[in-house]
Amino acid sequence: MRVLLIHTDYLKYKTKNKTPIAEEIEKDREEGAFNEALVVFTAVEKDDEKNPAGVVNNLINEIKSTNDQISAEKIVLYPYAHLSSSLSSPKAAIDILKMAEDELSVCGFEVSRVPFGWYKSFEISCKGHPLSELSRSIEAVDITADEIGEEEESEPS
Amino acid sequence: MRVLLIHTDYLKYKTKNKTPIAEEIEKDREEGAFNEALVVFTAVEKDDEKNPAGVVNNLINEIKSTNDQISAEKIVLYPYAHLSSSLSSPKAAIDILKMAEDELSVCGFEVSRVPFGWYKSFEISCKGHPLSELSRSIEAVDITADEIGEEEESEPS
Ligand SMILES: [Mg+2]
Repeated sequence: MRVLLIHTDYLKYKTKNKTPIAEEIEKDREEGAFNEALVVFTAVEKDDEKNPAGVVNNLINEIKSTNDQISAEKIVLYPYAHLSSSLSSPKAAIDILKMAEDELSVCGFEVSRVPFGWYKSFEISCKGHPLSELSRSIEAVDITADEIGEEEESEPS
Repeated sequence: MRVLLIHTDYLKYKTKNKTPIAEEIEKDREEGAFNEALVVFTAVEKDDEKNPAGVVNNLINEIKSTNDQISAEKIVLYPYAHLSSSLSSPKAAIDILKMAEDELSVCGFEVSRVPFGWYKSFEISCKGHPLSELSRSIEAVDITADEIGEEEESEPS
């Protein structure tokens, strides 16, 4: 899984055209607007299909440790295929994003999940402080295990 | 080189803190605002250092063929390290971005280049039509040669 975490003043989106892999959505998810959110652009990868629970667990840990430092008011999971050239199946991606949404909610976060597989317009405002743009490669392995997942540092853009 | 091409209603940015790899900038580049631009988020990669002119040539061809379809009014080159985990040296990245800026200008485009190596706040509005978000992996090889560069298709986000 590749993620790009953006600490935002706001995010707004509107669904436009459906693609063949679009999830079915209720009216209330056709558009959305969020202030002071940590937006997690997420590309679920082939490898993640082997251990969905493990990768979700490490994603949650990453979001928690980022939000401990920036104190965003809510989390928005935004599916973003453009972050990887090794994507999972659409079904696996939707399942993993739903699991992450549920887990974050259980952890006490206010969380929203942007629809998968739709063309969307969006507006976003990134705050610009050093922790407001972070990219990560997240694997299912426990970071206390021998094999340590690749992880990039914060890089200025 | 990895690029993310976004057809925007607008892009605005403001430089915030410098990083150790920041390029020196004049006052007039400390912030910027652009309407109806094709914004090219760009991560220059290690491999690109072998043949900067070749990769710039293919980047220009990609931008031209995209803009033939969307007719944006201007091009904005936005350095974006988060698109790759195999980055070039900062010097190579700046040189390649400057070359691309010059070449686009020679081709008749109105073009701007956002400062490299600064933390920046930004606001962007993506139009949301099927060609408004494209990601590409661009290599120096000529696409008429035997070895064809990896290239991803448009994916809904
Ligand atoms: Mg603002």
